[in-house]
Amino acid sequence: MFWFRNFIKISTATRAKSPNTTNLILTSLSHFSTGASQPPVAAEPLGLGPTKADEKPRVVVLGSGWAGCRLMKGLDPKLYDIVCVSPRNHMVFTPLLASTCVGTLEFRSVAEPIARIQPSISTAPGSYFFLANCTALNTDTHEVHCETVTEGAQTLEPWKFKISYDKLVIASGAQASTFGINGVKEHAVFLREVHHAQAIRRKLLLNLMLSDVPGISEEEKRRLLHCVVVGGGPTGVEFSGELSDFIRKDVDQRYTHVKDYIHVTLIEAKDILSSFDDRLRHYAIKQLTKSGVRLVRGIVKDVKPEHVILSDGSEVPYGLLVWSTGVGPSPFVNSLGLPKSPGGRIGIDEWLRVPTVQDVFSIGDCSGFLESTGKPVLPALAQVAERQGKYLANLLNRIGKDGGGHANSAKELDFGDPFEYKHLGSMATIGRFKALVDLRQSKEAKGVSLAGFFSFFIWRSAYLTRVVSWRNRFYVLINWLTTSVFGRDISRL
Amino acid sequence: MFWFRNFIKISTATRAKSPNTTNLILTSLSHFSTGASQPPVAAEPLGLGPTKADEKPRVVVLGSGWAGCRLMKGLDPKLYDIVCVSPRNHMVFTPLLASTCVGTLEFRSVAEPIARIQPSISTAPGSYFFLANCTALNTDTHEVHCETVTEGAQTLEPWKFKISYDKLVIASGAQASTFGINGVKEHAVFLREVHHAQAIRRKLLLNLMLSDVPGISEEEKRRLLHCVVVGGGPTGVEFSGELSDFIRKDVDQRYTHVKDYIHVTLIEAKDILSSFDDRLRHYAIKQLTKSGVRLVRGIVKDVKPEHVILSDGSEVPYGLLVWSTGVGPSPFVNSLGLPKSPGGRIGIDEWLRVPTVQDVFSIGDCSGFLESTGKPVLPALAQVAERQGKYLANLLNRIGKDGGGHANSAKELDFGDPFEYKHLGSMATIGRFKALVDLRQSKEAKGVSLAGFFSFFIWRSAYLTRVVSWRNRFYVLINWLTTSVFGRDISRL
Repeated sequence: MFWFRNFIKISTATRAKSPNTTNLILTSLSHFSTGASQPPVAAEPLGLGPTKADEKPRVVVLGSGWAGCRLMKGLDPKLYDIVCVSPRNHMVFTPLLASTCVGTLEFRSVAEPIARIQPSISTAPGSYFFLANCTALNTDTHEVHCETVTEGAQTLEPWKFKISYDKLVIASGAQASTFGINGVKEHAVFLREVHHAQAIRRKLLLNLMLSDVPGISEEEKRRLLHCVVVGGGPTGVEFSGELSDFIRKDVDQRYTHVKDYIHVTLIEAKDILSSFDDRLRHYAIKQLTKSGVRLVRGIVKDVKPEHVILSDGSEVPYGLLVWSTGVGPSPFVNSLGLPKSPGGRIGIDEWLRVPTVQDVFSIGDCSGFLESTGKPVLPALAQVAERQGKYLANLLNRIGKDGGGHANSAKELDFGDPFEYKHLGSMATIGRFKALVDLRQSKEAKGVSLAGFFSFFIWRSAYLTRVVSWRNRFYVLINWLTTSVFGRDISRL
Repeated sequence: MFWFRNFIKISTATRAKSPNTTNLILTSLSHFSTGASQPPVAAEPLGLGPTKADEKPRVVVLGSGWAGCRLMKGLDPKLYDIVCVSPRNHMVFTPLLASTCVGTLEFRSVAEPIARIQPSISTAPGSYFFLANCTALNTDTHEVHCETVTEGAQTLEPWKFKISYDKLVIASGAQASTFGINGVKEHAVFLREVHHAQAIRRKLLLNLMLSDVPGISEEEKRRLLHCVVVGGGPTGVEFSGELSDFIRKDVDQRYTHVKDYIHVTLIEAKDILSSFDDRLRHYAIKQLTKSGVRLVRGIVKDVKPEHVILSDGSEVPYGLLVWSTGVGPSPFVNSLGLPKSPGGRIGIDEWLRVPTVQDVFSIGDCSGFLESTGKPVLPALAQVAERQGKYLANLLNRIGKDGGGHANSAKELDFGDPFEYKHLGSMATIGRFKALVDLRQSKEAKGVSLAGFFSFFIWRSAYLTRVVSWRNRFYVLINWLTTSVFGRDISRL
């Protein structure tokens, strides 16, 4: 008998343990003997000093988005110590973020821990991930100044530290642009981070439940359940599609009391999906309208707690307001004394260097080609960031091999071919089993463009294979599977 | 060619759409014409009035825990309108909650939407789920007073409403007891709701990352990574087990820099798992110690932001403090003018009725047998709550069939057999592949008790089959699978 053998194990255990247990009680706190007295933070050393010639050179990466993570993935830990500074310890798989707002996908499925993308940052002795923001930059001394992110959690006071770099890669990304419109930051939700998606989901479910409570007026019910999306780019369109899909598939069944009150309105100043082929755009308009999304051409002038005001003076009440009108330079980028590209991004040359200073590179949404390069500033797309990260990883690895890894030692090296961007096309879903795929290199160029289920299929598989780890590919697949079988999850956590 | 057909679809679409689009823009906001002017909440009717004789009687359920959800699952929607009032729209599968803190399971896998447990609450015309708290009770007029839960989300001001009941079931549960110790509420985390588990997870990962930042002292590092669990009941033991398992399996690999600094201490005033067989308890002590959990016998006197003070004066610094010292009556229960059981719970008779008033029942952790029944107050266990919910569902269904569903109409009915509780045994895991199963009916009784892998296996399968929906059973299985293949997830969302 299995459990009988366990009995014997236990009884011997008992005899062996009894004295021990008391020991434990006495010894258990010993290692804190000096704990209370000491100051929380030691005076020195505060930070990581310069690397010595006989040490591995150190690459410091600011940011953990598409650009930074693709770079870290490609960097050779045998050549460099890798230090990542970012306010989040994971990369967000942004193309699928919209799906998490309505429970089609779980939040975790679209978040990839950096330690999985580049294991050495948590295992190699000289490599680190620091949960912190970069506050300043000293290109003369090759130092970045950082401050820890503690989110007011009663854990530790935030404190500052410095890191010396041999190579610095600024990949801190852009920030959602509000065009200086009042109330956007206060009342609207962006859709760039997992916590944004979580906020949208919580608010959507909260409003669905509140609108069912007795004593609420018809108009208030309508307002609570009116979801307004500002910005008709891929993000705005995908979110509107997911939302209307959620309404038709799940709300209709599981919130029968209020299903007739919920509506989605998409507000765009110009044309939706302006970067896409006109035929695709009209197809998208047709599909969105068919699935119940109201398309409004208008310019938002002011955002109040319960309604937005358009430039024509009309008021649009909302219960949930999602803001996806593109991105602009972050305050951090603005604060840097570096040359700027058109549009105020960090100015880079064809090798993604900041040409005015040594050993500083910049990739992703925060950077743009200098006017002097004669190249256009590339769009703020995952595709661009990913390609730049890949290119720079190879470049830095080559520099490292050629012995130019340390600070100020790459001056004479040949950097080889400059970065060339080849647009592989744009994709966007518009609700269930419908997507647009535009495989042309530019709006003018000839090329293939598809719409409908076939492209939906391309889209899903394309993304599925691009989700970084197998674990997440697996999870996304499972999520899509369970959602189609059991419907979306509606528990509000 | 598939995409070619799409072209045709599109071009026809284009022609058809162009005029339409303009229409849309003009009409899209029409249904808000009167929106801005109206008051947010209508003057009347504020709430659900009494049911008429020709209407279905209304059962109002306060709470959505094991007791309330099991009851709603069993109630016959053909006999009753079901109205649930609870601050959360899902049931928490508490036995697996500890596993979510360290990423063994996802949060969603242990949360079951009430609408899945009893679909009629979101579909039947007279049945509702209200995201609200019950604030008061009027047994003479058969009314409950409620206030909406809005969590300060800028959505709507919380407001009050009333619900008339034909039958009222109070299943609002208990609350974690702090024994009046200062600082517990402020600095410790309980482990009863999903948001508790989320808070623990976020804090644990935050501390793991912060402890790696340069400039932090040795002692501070030790403090940050010292997880202290107060209370040696099943919850405390299971959490300690999961945590030490997480440390040995995941932290060792993925936080190599700090792995030697992280420790778990379990503080218990008397014996851990006191309700279990002595042999099992010693086995548990042996296993926990082996897996690196420090067992400290002590009484917490005071809780400071960064350390707890024990009654013997010794100080225990902590980075994460989890409080699981059992439960006591909630302020709501205390506020009710109803007879109380020993221990201050709502006093009930053998039929789970509150005997002093008509049509009021109480089940789960918030209720206990009156002294007059001569029965002992049952322990605050999921098992008890689940059994009571099931019993009461059958009782109310029978009453409904016999025409006693409406208020004050069940006086003469025979309630049949009283509720009998038969303890099916207790279970607790202690980390990886180890669990205790105590199948005796009481501490004194003879019976089977097992420990080790075999019982771990029983435990997992027992719980797996008790997770409410197939969707969640499936998810839990998938979670356990992926965790064992890929390790736990460490992205901090």
